[in-house]
Amino acid sequence: MFKVNVGVSNHHIHLTKEAYEKLFKTPYNVYKELSQKGQFATDKMVTIVGPKGKIERLRFLGPYRKYNQVEVSKSDAFLLGINPPVRQSGDLENSESIRVIGEDGEITLDSSVIIAEAHVHMSLEDLDKYGVKNKEQVLVKVNGNRVAYIRAIIKADETGVLELHIDRDEANALLLEQGSQVEVIKWPLE
Amino acid sequence: MFKVNVGVSNHHIHLTKEAYEKLFKTPYNVYKELSQKGQFATDKMVTIVGPKGKIERLRFLGPYRKYNQVEVSKSDAFLLGINPPVRQSGDLENSESIRVIGEDGEITLDSSVIIAEAHVHMSLEDLDKYGVKNKEQVLVKVNGNRVAYIRAIIKADETGVLELHIDRDEANALLLEQGSQVEVIKWPLE
Repeated sequence: MFKVNVGVSNHHIHLTKEAYEKLFKTPYNVYKELSQKGQFATDKMVTIVGPKGKIERLRFLGPYRKYNQVEVSKSDAFLLGINPPVRQSGDLENSESIRVIGEDGEITLDSSVIIAEAHVHMSLEDLDKYGVKNKEQVLVKVNGNRVAYIRAIIKADETGVLELHIDRDEANALLLEQGSQVEVIKWPLE
Repeated sequence: MFKVNVGVSNHHIHLTKEAYEKLFKTPYNVYKELSQKGQFATDKMVTIVGPKGKIERLRFLGPYRKYNQVEVSKSDAFLLGINPPVRQSGDLENSESIRVIGEDGEITLDSSVIIAEAHVHMSLEDLDKYGVKNKEQVLVKVNGNRVAYIRAIIKADETGVLELHIDRDEANALLLEQGSQVEVIKWPLE
């Protein structure tokens, strides 16, 4: 159907303004603009602590959101000792909980930790251009030193920029990196 | 086509008798029989050292082989700072090199480090039973919280026991674990 570049999402945290202010007394600075319009990495990082281990230097991505959300990979989850569900962003009901430590305080976030489901960001115009529907399932064909087809969900909005988002475990398993090119094809194949 | 159980291969090392004796002065003991007949984990472990990092407690799997081979995942490779190719076992030409430290000595293994390609072990009788050929490409359908089709190679021999072998990165990315069940289907799908 069409080609997309890969964006590899490392573990990160989204915060409400209220939660941020419990963790940090000083304002954040933009560290780097991200590929999706208006989204950015900040210079602020937290430590997350689970029953079995912790992850330091987990970056806060802005701007503020209406919900707190921590995105980790399965290997992170093993290390932390938690069992988060695979979900789309914002779908947090009955997800995992985690303790979060900032520079100036700490909080516990209940039902806030997920493993992100692979998704293809795009604009509303792209939906027409590529003949897909928002939230539709597609297959992503990976054709490198490892060959695979993985399910991903179309995620279109006004500010969307065409890119496949996968997590670090998926990138390592499929030997993909930031900027790799893959092909989106119709679901299902069989 | 047919269903198989998943075996997750953590990083490990195979050694010749000659290499073993440079690393260890005492004989190994069998720690655990593996699913493939005659293969076993031993009680001996080594440390492997790359330009950027090291991995400790990498287990020696017996019996002795005619070649030395270290199997790591892509995330291990990042940690070590090396770039091994994705290969089938024994296909070591122009693969990566690594320093190996045992209890009583150390050696450098040239062209000995690979990332294992997913493969389906089976017996020669299974080839007929399932209508596949040795070294044939197949697709493995993963149908859990993540859905994917990954390429694997049929690997049949006299002592083969039906099982899909994948590495730790693949297991984490696909949310599979030791004993998970998946389906083997014909290649290609398109």
